[in-house]
Order: sequence, then C-alpha cells, then structure tokens
Amino acid sequence: MGTLEGHLLPGMFFLFYSLYYSVLVSLALLRGQRLLKLPLPPREKRGQRWWQLVPLEGVVKVVITTAGIIPEFFYPPGENRLTMVDWEDPRRPFIFKDNWQHVTMYGFFLLSGVVDIVSQSCQAQQKLKLERAAEALAFHVLVLLMATHIENKSTLEIRVHILFMVPAFLVALVLTTEVWFPDQPTLWVLKTWMGLVLSSWLLQLCVLMYAPPSGQPWRADSPEDLAFLTIFFCWHLAIQAAVLAVIYALCSLWHRRCSSSIAVLSTRYQPCPMDPSSEELEKLSADAVLQDRGV
Amino acid sequence: MGTLEGHLLPGMFFLFYSLYYSVLVSLALLRGQRLLKLPLPPREKRGQRWWQLVPLEGVVKVVITTAGIIPEFFYPPGENRLTMVDWEDPRRPFIFKDNWQHVTMYGFFLLSGVVDIVSQSCQAQQKLKLERAAEALAFHVLVLLMATHIENKSTLEIRVHILFMVPAFLVALVLTTEVWFPDQPTLWVLKTWMGLVLSSWLLQLCVLMYAPPSGQPWRADSPEDLAFLTIFFCWHLAIQAAVLAVIYALCSLWHRRCSSSIAVLSTRYQPCPMDPSSEELEKLSADAVLQDRGV
Amino acid sequence: MGTLEGHLLPGMFFLFYSLYYSVLVSLALLRGQRLLKLPLPPREKRGQRWWQLVPLEGVVKVVITTAGIIPEFFYPPGENRLTMVDWEDPRRPFIFKDNWQHVTMYGFFLLSGVVDIVSQSCQAQQKLKLERAAEALAFHVLVLLMATHIENKSTLEIRVHILFMVPAFLVALVLTTEVWFPDQPTLWVLKTWMGLVLSSWLLQLCVLMYAPPSGQPWRADSPEDLAFLTIFFCWHLAIQAAVLAVIYALCSLWHRRCSSSIAVLSTRYQPCPMDPSSEELEKLSADAVLQDRGV
Amino acid sequence: MGTLEGHLLPGMFFLFYSLYYSVLVSLALLRGQRLLKLPLPPREKRGQRWWQLVPLEGVVKVVITTAGIIPEFFYPPGENRLTMVDWEDPRRPFIFKDNWQHVTMYGFFLLSGVVDIVSQSCQAQQKLKLERAAEALAFHVLVLLMATHIENKSTLEIRVHILFMVPAFLVALVLTTEVWFPDQPTLWVLKTWMGLVLSSWLLQLCVLMYAPPSGQPWRADSPEDLAFLTIFFCWHLAIQAAVLAVIYALCSLWHRRCSSSIAVLSTRYQPCPMDPSSEELEKLSADAVLQDRGV
Repeated sequence: MGTLEGHLLPGMFFLFYSLYYSVLVSLALLRGQRLLKLPLPPREKRGQRWWQLVPLEGVVKVVITTAGIIPEFFYPPGENRLTMVDWEDPRRPFIFKDNWQHVTMYGFFLLSGVVDIVSQSCQAQQKLKLERAAEALAFHVLVLLMATHIENKSTLEIRVHILFMVPAFLVALVLTTEVWFPDQPTLWVLKTWMGLVLSSWLLQLCVLMYAPPSGQPWRADSPEDLAFLTIFFCWHLAIQAAVLAVIYALCSLWHRRCSSSIAVLSTRYQPCPMDPSSEELEKLSADAVLQDRGV
Repeated sequence: MGTLEGHLLPGMFFLFYSLYYSVLVSLALLRGQRLLKLPLPPREKRGQRWWQLVPLEGVVKVVITTAGIIPEFFYPPGENRLTMVDWEDPRRPFIFKDNWQHVTMYGFFLLSGVVDIVSQSCQAQQKLKLERAAEALAFHVLVLLMATHIENKSTLEIRVHILFMVPAFLVALVLTTEVWFPDQPTLWVLKTWMGLVLSSWLLQLCVLMYAPPSGQPWRADSPEDLAFLTIFFCWHLAIQAAVLAVIYALCSLWHRRCSSSIAVLSTRYQPCPMDPSSEELEKLSADAVLQDRGV
Repeated sequence: MGTLEGHLLPGMFFLFYSLYYSVLVSLALLRGQRLLKLPLPPREKRGQRWWQLVPLEGVVKVVITTAGIIPEFFYPPGENRLTMVDWEDPRRPFIFKDNWQHVTMYGFFLLSGVVDIVSQSCQAQQKLKLERAAEALAFHVLVLLMATHIENKSTLEIRVHILFMVPAFLVALVLTTEVWFPDQPTLWVLKTWMGLVLSSWLLQLCVLMYAPPSGQPWRADSPEDLAFLTIFFCWHLAIQAAVLAVIYALCSLWHRRCSSSIAVLSTRYQPCPMDPSSEELEKLSADAVLQDRGV
Repeated sequence: MGTLEGHLLPGMFFLFYSLYYSVLVSLALLRGQRLLKLPLPPREKRGQRWWQLVPLEGVVKVVITTAGIIPEFFYPPGENRLTMVDWEDPRRPFIFKDNWQHVTMYGFFLLSGVVDIVSQSCQAQQKLKLERAAEALAFHVLVLLMATHIENKSTLEIRVHILFMVPAFLVALVLTTEVWFPDQPTLWVLKTWMGLVLSSWLLQLCVLMYAPPSGQPWRADSPEDLAFLTIFFCWHLAIQAAVLAVIYALCSLWHRRCSSSIAVLSTRYQPCPMDPSSEELEKLSADAVLQDRGV
C-alpha cells in the first residue's frame, strides 16, 4: 500500500535478506567456494526428516510475500479490494490500480519462492538456473511495474523511485548474468551490495516521504531538494559498502577462529579445492553441514 | 490491416509457431541435444523423395506470410492498394502507409522463409547461421517499423504496441546471439517463452482494442487503464511461463514412456552424447527420424 | 557541403569502398581465411619496389577525404571559409559551422588513412588493432557529429539522418568489436552489409532531399512521408543483402573456376588451414600474391 | 566550487594523473607486461623501510581530494558551509547543494585512495579487483552526480557537461570491465586516452566558461556555439590521441636505449615472458625496481 507500513514491510524484508546474503557471500569468499550456495545432493542422498527436506529460503519468501499481498486487498479490516473493475459505474472503470500493481510485484517474488521450493524438494536434481531466472524475473517485473507506477506523480516521488529502480535493475541484470555464470564471486558481491542499497533506500524513502526528521515535507518544486536526493543516494552507496566490509570482517574473524578450533579438534576441514568436481562439492557441502552443527 | 482480423492472423501464427517451438525445445532439453534442431545431413546423404527434401518450416512461413500480404493489397475484394503515391493529386502524396508497413513486416518473415528453403534444399551444407540471422532481421525490422507505426496514435495504442515491442526485441536479440552461440539451451527457452508472450499479447491486443469484454472501450486518457495494461502484460509473462512448464511436463511424460518402450523393443536409443562430433550428430539425427516414425 | 554534390561524394566513396569490401569478404569466406586481410609480412621480407611498399587503401582514403575537405573551404572558387570566428562582428560569433562539422568528419577518415599508411609502411610489424581502432573512431565521431548536425533542422531531415546514423553506429560497434575479435566472419559480413546500407541510404538521401523523382518535395509535416522513410530504409536493408548475396555468388563462381585452373596448372594452392600459425599465414599471403598475379 | 579555480584543480589533477598513466601504459606495452601494474609481492617479502610500505598513488589521491574538499566548505576564509539545512528558516530548506555535490564527488575519489592504501599496506595480499572497483565506483558516482548537477542550467553548460560525462562514463565502464579482465592492453590504452580527453576537456571548460579568448562569452541560445562545442570535443579526441602517441614514442626511445645499455652492463634484463606465473612476475617486478634505480 502507498503508506508508511506498505513501504516498510518490503524494505525490512529486503534488508534482512540482503544482510543474510552478506554473511553467505562473506563465508563463501572466505571458504573459497566456487558457487555461492553449494548445490543440494541428489534427492535420495538427503536426510529423511521433514525439516531437512523443507527449503527454508523458499518458504520464507512465500510467507513474507503472502503477508504483503493480503493487506493490499483486505486492510483496513472490512475492506475488500479483490475486484478490479467497478461494475456499478456504467463506464466500467478500472479501480485499485496501485493495489494490483503491488500485488503483481509481490506475486512474482511469491513465484520465485514457489520455484525454489519445487526445484529443491520436488525435483531429483536442483535446478539452480531456474531459481536464478525466477529471481531475475521478479526484479525485472519490479522495475517494469515501477516505471508505470510513478506516472502522474510528483517530480520528487518520480526521482525517489527512479533511484530505487537503479539498484533494482542492477540486481536484475546480475541475476540474469548468474543464470549463465554462477561462479563469479564479484557478481555475488555486487548483487549483495546493490540489495543492501535498495533496501536501505526503501527505508530512506519511508522516512523521506512519510516522516521527514526536519518536520517539513520535501518540496518537489525545489531544485535543492532534488539535488540532495541524488547526494543521499550516493552516500547510501558508500555506507552500504562499509556495512558489507564490516560484515566481511566479522565473518573473517569468526571463520578464522572456527577453522582453527576445528583444526585442533580434528582434521575434518579440507582446504578449498580450486576446481572441484561434483563429488568434491558434495563432500564439501557435507562438511559444511557438520561444521555448522559443530559451532 | 488495422482490423481485428489483421491482428488475429499474425497472433495465431506466432502462437502456433511458439507452441511448436515449445515442444521442440522441451524435447531437445529432454534428449540433451547440443543444438535445438539437429542439422540436416549433407545433401547427397538425404532421402531422395520430394517430401524429404522440402523444408516444411520454410514453406509454412512463405505460405502464411503470403496469406497476410495479399489481403493488405486486395481486401475487401475489388480494392487495389498496390500503388504508394496518389498520382492524381498534384501534391503527389504517399498513400496506404499502414498497408505498406504491414507488407514490409510480412515481407521480412517471407524472406526468412525463403532463406530457410534455400539453405536447406539448395545448398550442399545447411547454413544455420544464415537462417538465424534472417529470422533476427525479421524481428529487428518488425520492431523498427512498429516504432514508426505507432506515431500519431493514442497513448493507449502506443503503450500497447510498446509492450509488444519488448518481447519482440528480446526475441530479436536472442536470435542475434544465437548466430554466434547456437548451443545455449537457456537462450532457446527464453526465445520460446518470449515468443509465447508476444503472440498471446497480440491476441490480448485484439480483444482489448476491438472487442473489450466489459463492452466499454479502454480510455487512453485514464491513468488506471494505462496502469492495468502493464499489470496484464506481467500476468502474460507468468501465464506463458506456466504454459511452457506444462508443455515441458507433458513432453517429459511422453519422452519417458517412449524412451522406455523403445528400450524394451530394441537398443536403438543411445544416451545423449555430451560433446558430440559431427558424425555423432548425424547418427543421432538419423535415430531421431527412425524414432519419430516408430512412434 | 549541404548540397547534392556534398552528399554524393561521400555516398559514392562509401559505396565503392563497401563493394570492394564485399568482394574482399566473399573471397575471404570462400578461401576460409582466418582474418579478413592477411597481415603483411614483416617489413624486411616485403618487396623492395616502391609500389609494393605503398599501402593503397590508406592512400585512397587520404586522397578522397582531401578531395572532400578542400571544397568545403574553397568552393565555389574565390571563397575562403578557413576562419571560424567572424572577427569583424563585435559579438565575435562563430561562423561556417556546417563546413567545420563536415571537415571534422572527413578529418577523422583522413586520420584513419594516415594510421593505415604509418602502420603498414613505417612500422616493423603491421598494427592491425590500431587500424581497426582508427576506423572505429572515425565512425563514432561521424555519429557524434551527426547528432549535433541535425539540430534545428526539419523533422524530415532529422529522421533521414537518424536512419543514416543507425547503420553508421552499427559499423562503429562492429569495428570496435573487431579490435578484440578480428577473426569473426559473421562480423565482416555484418560490417560490409551495413556499409552498403549506409552508402545506398546516403544516395537515397540525395535523391530524396535534392531531386525527388515525383517532382514534389517531401513534406516534413506529413506522417505518411515520415512513415515511408522507414519503409524505404527497410527495403534498402533487404536490397543490399541481395546485392551482397549476388557478389558472393559471382565471387564463388570466379573462385571455383580459378582454383580448378590453378589446380591444373600446378599444385601451388594449399587448402585453407583451419588454425594457421603465423608462418602459415605468411605463406598463404605469399600464395595469394602469386595467385593474384597469375589471374 | 563553481568557479574557475574549482574546475582547474580537478582538471590539472586528472591531467597529471592521465599523463602519469600514459607513461605507465607505454612502458607496460613496451615491456610486454601482462598486467598494467605488477602486483606487489606478499607483505612479508616487501622492503621494511616505511617509504617502501607507503602506497604513493593512494596517498596522492587522498591529499589532492582533501585539498579539493576543504575549500568547498571553508573558502573564502571565514565561511562555513558544513551545514546542509538552513535551520533558521521555518521551511527548513536545503542549502549549498553545489558544494555538497562536489564534496560527494571528491569523497568517492578519496574513498578510492583509502581503498588503495588499505589494499596495498594493510592486507597480506593486494586486492587488485577491489582497487579497480573503487575507482570505477568513483567515476560512476561522478557521472550520476553530474547528471543532476546540470539541472536548471543553461543549454551551453548542460552540453559542456554532457560532453564531459561521455569520456568519464567510458572510463567508468573500462574500469568496471578491468575488474574482470585486467590483462587487456587495449583497455589500458582506451582508459588512458579517455582520461586525457576528460582532463583536457575540463580545462577547455574553464577557458570556455570563465575566460573565453575572444573576450566574448559563449551564447547558449546560438546553434553555432553549440555546434562548435561538439566540433572542439572531437578535436580534443584527436589531439589527445596524438599526445598519447608522442608519449609512447618518447617512452619507446627511452626504453630502447635503457634496455640496450643494461644489456651491455649486465645480463640482468630478461625478455618479457608471455605467460608469466606469479613467481616470474615477482622476479620481473624486482628487476623493474633495480632498473629504475640504475637509470
């Protein structure tokens, strides 16, 4: 919804998701992994308990996007916006366009979650390309809808949303590239950084449009205000790069201590293989599971 | 022609063509083919009967586009629009611009059909690159002409046609890429999906502009109507992805049953070679022919 | 100059140059060459007579562009446009902008010719990358200057020039790509085809703007006229593709006869090596010289 | 600052930096290096004196950008522009937007300098990719801020700055590409050339906007003046290409004399290895140090 809460929910979701990815990428870099997420072993070799079979990330995506879709239609309670044409008006006009736009955006992230679940628990072999493609599609649709979403709005809102579309489009491009080249650590870092920027910009957007700290609304007709938008966006770029660096440093500390303690305990940890065949990856992922439990 | 029928014909043609490609791509993926279409064997090794020498796809392209070009000039019967300058007016104005635009669009698909026929039946060795390039050219010209076609039209028509140009341009780009990299299954899927989207969007366009189900015409001056255009386009993206998934599932069932029955009958079927040299491809294509007859 | 002659000269030059390249590319394809032009042997191994040392292509470029630059300043005779500021006017305005634009365009093609000469006759080893880069620069500058050249002109002139910029920019892109990947026959064909299109479009532009066959000037305010511009441009695409095909066919005939006659005379002709090292290329280029003399 | 001095400082800085890179690239090409700058040896193998540990380039970047940032806030003396909101005005307007834009631009170059220092003196292994990425970010931010910087300015200023953004964006793209492909000499040359063009254009911009030699200001409403802007820009392209060629020629002379004198003195100099492993690179860089001292 075009309210503070309607922007806060996706903003917080993107933020937690990006922070989670920052940790994931940092660890992948430190362990010298060839892929960001080690592919699941073939289905018959996985654990048999139900919680080992549930693809957590996909389920979280589905739950969060559903939590975003339902209030679009039924909030505040008593409302029902599930129709899209006002049948009582003889001109049959379309109604609730903003809600249907938001629902469509959420819908494609929901689709990405469903694809994750299907790929990880219903297929004999995980379809990594399909998962990346579905995520890329969600971001491409986000940008496309945003482009029509900002029509007939004030210059300020248009500018704010365009600056949101820039990192979103970059994420879409990186995800599209990852369909072909999943083994590029530089792309993982770029994706995560852009994810952090877009989520923090979404939160900035909430503050800026609904609760400016100076107590005065931003003015769309003032060149100063528009100029400072871009300046603040550049600062977000720098701040989120710093956030990423701090997370990497913390992970590096944790990884050094953990790998040394493990080295003392046993010799289970193998140095990162530079060109691992699938068998090695399987072993490594099994090790990773053991390690996670051990800590 | 700028009528319901004039948009239905290419819409249905693109739809059948894309559905045919969906099946083709699904089977190619299931068989693990390295190329979408196995190249024809050199001319002297092909069958001698005339129906084995006729390149069916090229002939269908030529017939359909001719069926599109003729009514542009001579429909309704008695009309003749083959001239492009009104010589009787002293100002010598150009006339029938829409018809000539449509004819030029059809003409380049006709050209692609002719290139297919020449490459497949007149050349000693099939020119796969040339066929892809001619198809790519047809789509590039389609987009270029569409860009001038929508001048001086209403915002609604412009928007509808731009949303048609997006998948058409993507198809053009993918076909251009396939000239260099014909062995990318991800590109085949993208091409087929975009083909499905553009054909179903063309049919949506017919409904929307000539026969709206609510009985009320869409309004170019209403932001709601324009916003719902993009929303519907995004839904087409999702729906056609689902159509593609269903076709893949059906082909998968058929392929599993067929390959097991063949395995029982004989051992003619070889597992997909990962890096086949040209001899292996020849054998495989011969097998494919036998298989198709056997089923 | 913005006259019929001023557009005819570059048009004819580009046309002859593209036709020459069509022959060159056709022969390179038929001989299965790995590079479009076989690199010159190192300087000390070349012939000693002066006509063997003169890089013909570079000299032609220099002569033609000089023939284009001089009339810009001194035609009609008695004129002198070598100044660019009107010092007598107290406001010191710039003058002769069109002439200086044309001269700058010619100047970069002149530069490309000079680079060819220096690279081929003054350097120990031919710098193929530098030659391609200089050509690419000439086309990039052509497009950049054209973009400002068409300011404050009529819609028709703008449209005509934009349609000229499309193939020119494609040629620039292909030449830029060839700096890195000179061994892509598909790029040679694309470059030559686009060269043919831009030169024939330049000639069409002369006819259209200075001598319309209907005796009536085109009207910038008529949507029909603008629409037919793009239609004609698409036809040029098809016609020049046909021209290229005809030239290829003729070269193919010539090549088949010539290679068989040579095969009878002697066994000097070696089949095209697929992955020639530099020694093989040297031998091949020596052969090519012999062959050219022999025919 | 939007003054002559404010544009001269970065212009001169970019010019010296580009000239330094011209020499660096020329020598790298002459020595046949595989990387533009030989990576530092691991930290424990470097010299122990402090001047061997200080990364000179990074320190220069930090000093110069600081010298650019301070006057933005405190010049002329007595000024203090460190605030960004005018708290006394009840409407709380933003103030000093130009200064904050300039400071943000400088800030990202400062960041790039800090990244250089950290990567070269605090890390066990130099992070070349990170250094290139930080430089690329600085140029991307430069272009993004410039795009909002030119809003509400005259056509002339907009055009002048757009022509500055073209080489800046190309440098940003090349630096981004170098993150993945650092071993492309063509990219080094392109980057250096574009650096020379943007710095000389920045100086031209000073002359043009603050001190026109004709004594008359340029007029934004005159098509002639706008056309000559682009013409002059193209000339800068050619002139800086010539500057680069001259520097290469001088370096070539120096390199030939120096390598022959060294060859006489001793046999310390090894011919450039075409595919050097890291040990060879280390040796080569050690040699380079010796050579530099010897001359």
